[in-house]
Amino acid sequence: MIFITRRERFNAAHRLFRQDYTDEKNLEVFGKCSNPNWHGHNYILYVTVKGEVNQETGFLINLKELSKVINLHVIEKVDHKNINLEVDFMKGKLASTENLAISIWDELDLPLQRLNAMLHSVKIYESENNIVEYLGPKINFGS
Amino acid sequence: MIFITRRERFNAAHRLFRQDYTDEKNLEVFGKCSNPNWHGHNYILYVTVKGEVNQETGFLINLKELSKVINLHVIEKVDHKNINLEVDFMKGKLASTENLAISIWDELDLPLQRLNAMLHSVKIYESENNIVEYLGPKINFGS
Amino acid sequence: MIFITRRERFNAAHRLFRQDYTDEKNLEVFGKCSNPNWHGHNYILYVTVKGEVNQETGFLINLKELSKVINLHVIEKVDHKNINLEVDFMKGKLASTENLAISIWDELDLPLQRLNAMLHSVKIYESENNIVEYLGPKINFGS
Amino acid sequence: MIFITRRERFNAAHRLFRQDYTDEKNLEVFGKCSNPNWHGHNYILYVTVKGEVNQETGFLINLKELSKVINLHVIEKVDHKNINLEVDFMKGKLASTENLAISIWDELDLPLQRLNAMLHSVKIYESENNIVEYLGPKINFGS
Amino acid sequence: MIFITRRERFNAAHRLFRQDYTDEKNLEVFGKCSNPNWHGHNYILYVTVKGEVNQETGFLINLKELSKVINLHVIEKVDHKNINLEVDFMKGKLASTENLAISIWDELDLPLQRLNAMLHSVKIYESENNIVEYLGPKINFGS
Amino acid sequence: MIFITRRERFNAAHRLFRQDYTDEKNLEVFGKCSNPNWHGHNYILYVTVKGEVNQETGFLINLKELSKVINLHVIEKVDHKNINLEVDFMKGKLASTENLAISIWDELDLPLQRLNAMLHSVKIYESENNIVEYLGPKINFGS
Repeated sequence: MIFITRRERFNAAHRLFRQDYTDEKNLEVFGKCSNPNWHGHNYILYVTVKGEVNQETGFLINLKELSKVINLHVIEKVDHKNINLEVDFMKGKLASTENLAISIWDELDLPLQRLNAMLHSVKIYESENNIVEYLGPKINFGS
Repeated sequence: MIFITRRERFNAAHRLFRQDYTDEKNLEVFGKCSNPNWHGHNYILYVTVKGEVNQETGFLINLKELSKVINLHVIEKVDHKNINLEVDFMKGKLASTENLAISIWDELDLPLQRLNAMLHSVKIYESENNIVEYLGPKINFGS
Repeated sequence: MIFITRRERFNAAHRLFRQDYTDEKNLEVFGKCSNPNWHGHNYILYVTVKGEVNQETGFLINLKELSKVINLHVIEKVDHKNINLEVDFMKGKLASTENLAISIWDELDLPLQRLNAMLHSVKIYESENNIVEYLGPKINFGS
Repeated sequence: MIFITRRERFNAAHRLFRQDYTDEKNLEVFGKCSNPNWHGHNYILYVTVKGEVNQETGFLINLKELSKVINLHVIEKVDHKNINLEVDFMKGKLASTENLAISIWDELDLPLQRLNAMLHSVKIYESENNIVEYLGPKINFGS
Repeated sequence: MIFITRRERFNAAHRLFRQDYTDEKNLEVFGKCSNPNWHGHNYILYVTVKGEVNQETGFLINLKELSKVINLHVIEKVDHKNINLEVDFMKGKLASTENLAISIWDELDLPLQRLNAMLHSVKIYESENNIVEYLGPKINFGS
Repeated sequence: MIFITRRERFNAAHRLFRQDYTDEKNLEVFGKCSNPNWHGHNYILYVTVKGEVNQETGFLINLKELSKVINLHVIEKVDHKNINLEVDFMKGKLASTENLAISIWDELDLPLQRLNAMLHSVKIYESENNIVEYLGPKINFGS
């Protein structure tokens, strides 16, 4: 069992708010992240897969393939986009980094299984100080 | 003559476009940065001042003071804001990192002179790959 | 179950030594870290909490709150301090990064429980080459 | 139970290929990494050990000792070397980062046991985007 | 006058040696960098251009264009290559980072002039500790 | 003319204060940096030299030699030391990063001239946010 991580990056706008809150309530709960005119981030995404090393190639997974899957299913949908308005897999959800990590897991899980790679972790740096990691609906430490 | 640099950070939304361009022209010139629904960045700002070391304090400038000035005149105006819509010193300008660097210079020049510090450079990392530096209206290498 | 990490930083002086050792013995065991005149570090602290995402806010925990708790219970007590002489929660302990991580866990565990966040990890970078992580008195991988 | 990580670095040349593949097949499977004239990397190696804190020293393990063991058993054998041609513990293996991580684990496991440190993880950054981690032949989360 | 920097990366093998030196002399002068079986690096390249901001676009230069020029004239020729054997613009030169920086300047100078951008600096990180910068055949600080 | 930079690191304790100030005055001027029990930093030092490339070696200066000179004249004197009490070249000076940069310049200038390298810059990162650079008693941009 080995773990391989691919780093990808995307730049996006978002806003934290609830439509059923007043502006005051949104400001109270979400602070300046609730700014109605949006703000944005350089998100850094780390996707980790796990599995056995293929004896013929020495690879768990070809990193070019891993990168392609992440770009097709995630980066192209979020890069230079508005997460609240334009990202199909975030529709109807609060645009928090927690929800983003969970939704990216859901986007990647099946396509990676088709490459015989088991998704282990989706980790997002919203900034150098704020990091979210999701290990999937049932945590499985490789046993 | 010594140079002191303070790093500050802000997260903001922006969009590159001209109102007198069609959407197609904006897309052609500015690429995905012209997305009408905005995108954003974690901007990293390096402000460098220069001058003589004060013999009594061993400082060129108290870094707390430098940080306060940058926060008051720049960070509070751009952090978690939309650069196109909400930043007074960017009104009527294309929201490029070049224009941002020049405008931040103009915001900081006088307040720093009042602290007896001469502004030397405003440097902005829009991403880890894209960096803009402005050395002022007439470049003066300290002579 | 999701994991959220907040990065905070502090600068402190410390010294590794035992009073019941001779100077020679201290030098032999702790090397130049035993310097009687102290040395110091820019410590980087990563605190990870885990739990369920609150469906109303999309947050596991408000990162501002997490940061406040870490600052109140840890950073204010260690930043610009001498770890051996001035930090209450390190009194009577060797000022190793291992002990620092364990003591910071003990400082944060209860206050974080009061925020409904379960502490998962305390990780300290003493330098870019030396890193310590503590996962608590009984390791619990989220089950 | 505490975890200590030491970062070390090495620069090496390598090539991904199989002798029983044609050049075309190597190019197809391994891409530009199969270049017959080699290419290379600044590898960054993180070695994590785990165990109990020694009450007398406050250490899990003396980081100087840990660094010495890693340098003696790994760095001196790979730094400024050709991984395919010159590294004894990689002889006969595909020079993938996966195989490198597993082989470095095998090199370090016993020498670290002699220092009463249990190896927990070998993590290699081949680049800022590509990372491999190996947790050993049977994953053991510290119980 | 404004300065724009684009970061690009490449991985390559090289060797420092002179054919007219004995192996002993090569080892003495170039140390382990003279290893006949090569070693390699993750080179990080920063290319800085300078000029006036175009009032219509707010750009000094479109960073996509800048990146394309650097990739076409430099990265495609050195990435996953052997600098001594395969890079046309390094033929007959010692593969030192100094010579690499000067040669990359010579590769980029004309193509960038065609984009109305004046090359200001070529900076290469061979490792996090070793950095070379070249400001061109006659240093011109923008006056 | 080419520029070569070597990065070195040191960990040290210091305190900002004047003996002729009261404790209150020291606190007012130097803030928490005046803590009588010291604090410390992981200082990062960048030393840049400039000159012509030696046609025989392709080097401006052998980086091993540059590193040796910096270690002999600076690092060994400051690493794991108290800058106020133990560093000969800081005796009688305020232990500010400005004074440290100037004093390190004075330590390195002559030894580097003996290696035919002209010192260009001494740059110190006291933290990721606070940076000081000194270009010598008369700034000379290489003409």
